[in-house]
Amino acid sequence: MAEGKKGITKRSEDFSRWYLDVIQGAEMADYSPVRGCMVIRPHGYAVWEKLRDALDGMIKETGHVNAYFPLFIPESFLTKESEHVEGFAPQCAVVTEGGGKPLEEKLYVRPTSETIMYSMYAKWISSWRDLPLLINQWANVVRWEMRTRLFLRTMEFLWQEGHTAHATEAEAEEEALRMLEVYRRLSEDVLAVPVIKGVKSESEKFAGALKTLCVESMMQDGKALQMGTSHNLGQNFAKVFDVAFQDQDGRRKHVWQTSWGVSTRLIGALIMAHSDDTGLVLPPRVAPVQIVVVPIWKSDAEKSAAVEAARAFQDALHGRASVRVDDREDHKPGFKYFEWERKGVPLRVEIGPKDLDKGTRMFVRRDTGEKRPVDASAAPGEALKVLDAIQSDLLEKARSFREGNTFTVDDWEDFKKRNASLDGGFYRAHWCGDPACEESVQEETKATIRCIPFEAEAEEGACIRCGKPSAKRVVFAKGY
Amino acid sequence: MAEGKKGITKRSEDFSRWYLDVIQGAEMADYSPVRGCMVIRPHGYAVWEKLRDALDGMIKETGHVNAYFPLFIPESFLTKESEHVEGFAPQCAVVTEGGGKPLEEKLYVRPTSETIMYSMYAKWISSWRDLPLLINQWANVVRWEMRTRLFLRTMEFLWQEGHTAHATEAEAEEEALRMLEVYRRLSEDVLAVPVIKGVKSESEKFAGALKTLCVESMMQDGKALQMGTSHNLGQNFAKVFDVAFQDQDGRRKHVWQTSWGVSTRLIGALIMAHSDDTGLVLPPRVAPVQIVVVPIWKSDAEKSAAVEAARAFQDALHGRASVRVDDREDHKPGFKYFEWERKGVPLRVEIGPKDLDKGTRMFVRRDTGEKRPVDASAAPGEALKVLDAIQSDLLEKARSFREGNTFTVDDWEDFKKRNASLDGGFYRAHWCGDPACEESVQEETKATIRCIPFEAEAEEGACIRCGKPSAKRVVFAKGY
Repeated sequence: MAEGKKGITKRSEDFSRWYLDVIQGAEMADYSPVRGCMVIRPHGYAVWEKLRDALDGMIKETGHVNAYFPLFIPESFLTKESEHVEGFAPQCAVVTEGGGKPLEEKLYVRPTSETIMYSMYAKWISSWRDLPLLINQWANVVRWEMRTRLFLRTMEFLWQEGHTAHATEAEAEEEALRMLEVYRRLSEDVLAVPVIKGVKSESEKFAGALKTLCVESMMQDGKALQMGTSHNLGQNFAKVFDVAFQDQDGRRKHVWQTSWGVSTRLIGALIMAHSDDTGLVLPPRVAPVQIVVVPIWKSDAEKSAAVEAARAFQDALHGRASVRVDDREDHKPGFKYFEWERKGVPLRVEIGPKDLDKGTRMFVRRDTGEKRPVDASAAPGEALKVLDAIQSDLLEKARSFREGNTFTVDDWEDFKKRNASLDGGFYRAHWCGDPACEESVQEETKATIRCIPFEAEAEEGACIRCGKPSAKRVVFAKGY
Repeated sequence: MAEGKKGITKRSEDFSRWYLDVIQGAEMADYSPVRGCMVIRPHGYAVWEKLRDALDGMIKETGHVNAYFPLFIPESFLTKESEHVEGFAPQCAVVTEGGGKPLEEKLYVRPTSETIMYSMYAKWISSWRDLPLLINQWANVVRWEMRTRLFLRTMEFLWQEGHTAHATEAEAEEEALRMLEVYRRLSEDVLAVPVIKGVKSESEKFAGALKTLCVESMMQDGKALQMGTSHNLGQNFAKVFDVAFQDQDGRRKHVWQTSWGVSTRLIGALIMAHSDDTGLVLPPRVAPVQIVVVPIWKSDAEKSAAVEAARAFQDALHGRASVRVDDREDHKPGFKYFEWERKGVPLRVEIGPKDLDKGTRMFVRRDTGEKRPVDASAAPGEALKVLDAIQSDLLEKARSFREGNTFTVDDWEDFKKRNASLDGGFYRAHWCGDPACEESVQEETKATIRCIPFEAEAEEGACIRCGKPSAKRVVFAKGY
């Protein structure tokens, strides 16, 4: 197997292999003995905790509360909403024995929690005063996937699922948009992954939804990845589970609902958006260790001076950045650099005898490799600035990459040729709205409609596939 | 049904019914349509988040990291350790179908994760340099319980399970003790529930462990509740899963392990330790809302003055206490008092026209009902002191209750009579160490050995059951 620097396959050689090598090298996750299930190792889980806490804060700021619903869904519940059961039942793990006996009714391990949650909502909601009901759940879910890949597609994954109920259609639509904006902020401001906001085509929408909104990003191989979805469920589930309320006008009405979720898949996105041939690259806001300080010494005297300076630097940043001093005795500095680079620590600060003589600290940026001495007294403040710079530079770099790999195409033969020769890229093309054209494009090019972007301007054109009139360009791409 | 104040059954009438009424009244949890599974409602989940975050901090401070392992355990793994499988297999939910097809090997929904985790440890550990391995997991687990009760015993529950591997037996024993002390701190310093530290008898220890340490508390009905356990697993699992390392002396050795856990059961303990006939009582450290401010008005002018003063008080405590201003228009103050009392908010501050005239704020403690005016300017500082006082008073009150219901007994007939006439209480009695005596005591009195306390002094005596010599008193009680 072709290997790049330090045992990691180069992106240019085999992107897929590179992705797995980065995960392995950073000890983010591992294969488990259970088919399709992964183990999230401590470094990967620490990234998830940062991401989760950031998102949890935003979910609470927008008025939602957390709760917890059962892992198991009785078969009779899952089958109540017909589109929903068609979409999910074949993907489920099913419990048929419990306490040593066969069960009377099968229990499905939740693939998503609409049905179990809404059966409770029906019990809790009776008046307009009970609305809106704004609940989020952090949980594990299981979907029986045939082809799995660490973080991106695993049989079990961790996620949050928000489920809300509103008095009016307008409020539900507003909520779906509000949470899509939360996902945009999470993606761009926390994960430094730029996204396009839009709506899914009918064929790509959530089973049981009226409309699915999404944020889509581009990975370094030009492929698209869905970062999160926010569904306007209309009254579909409300009618099936009879979630209704007495309105102010005295009439009994069904609620309008939304659901929205993101998962551990985002860690896969994070890796594929920023990492390089040396290993993981983490945006500072999700880095469990933001700065690693490596003291360098040859003698005991040198050691105590270097470690003391390292601790002083760490203390100066206490509560403002997560700083680790790596003063392990049994490893050389080079080994430590290698390890922390692979683990994606944004900034390395080296402190050796020369730096102490000169009164400087050597800063090395993980993202650019830039190495420069910084005055010791200015070092803590400068370090915070560098972290901010890395955070925004990663976003800009990813944005430039996406722009450079987004193409406007109007000719079907050209579209086909480009999709055949290139692995990825976003193709802005006209689509008439007919599912048959969408399907045909996918069959011939493997590209799907990632979304109908909110920001696409009205523009008269002809469908890339059939030539019929189209009023707007959509984004086609091969997706994860 | 006999009902106490505000629709809650009195403790003295029916403790069990009271417990469920408190949960219902505070909207902590609800029954789900899935047999034996509960829904943790937002108020209950918010308490769990406070408890979890406090414990997570302690787990990390003691050097552990979090990770996540699969929900499913292949049948062949669970059956590897014979005591373990005997203990857990009959309690499991079993997945036999996936993706629409029968599975070749059954998957057990984890009842605990020793087997799946240690199969990974075997892969990750190779040298003494990899030790100690100190991993914790926050997860849901399932145990097929026949008789369930909200929080105390549910088919699915949330918990943390720490699993560590060490180079020596001494280190493992030290770790098991360290985590028991963490659980003592969590129980006493956070939940305000006093505990006794000790070791379980052979018959009560964890399936597969060498030794089970525990912290035991007393509920308001005098019954015992196990707050947490910490197991010294010895090398049992290490040998079965071949978790071994090359030691510094060059020899290959099996690791020494521990596991330890606490669950959402602690919320049940919290409720039964502190709550009263009015509803939930929460120690400030786990109260999602620590202080509720209720502005009181009759006119618009009065309203704006009262709400303004309430906001000023809230702002003064920003970042130091969680304060909620309840300025809802559609409810009267009395209704609000009632609601927040049932929800266990530790301190209520009332601000009405009279308080504004006098320049005071009316403080009402949830735990004692004490009501007194406090100077407006001193109110924020005083509120923090009151929260501290409530936290420590609840612990002391629970400790006094336990002391008052702990009895030293030396005569078997006396022991039997007391256990027959009383519902609860701790009985300090001699036990020879024979499991037959332990079993016979349980059969005749329903009391079990809750623990052999660390602090029990060496004392020559005779076994309460058989009269043979005993060197130490143990704690007998009826337990949850």
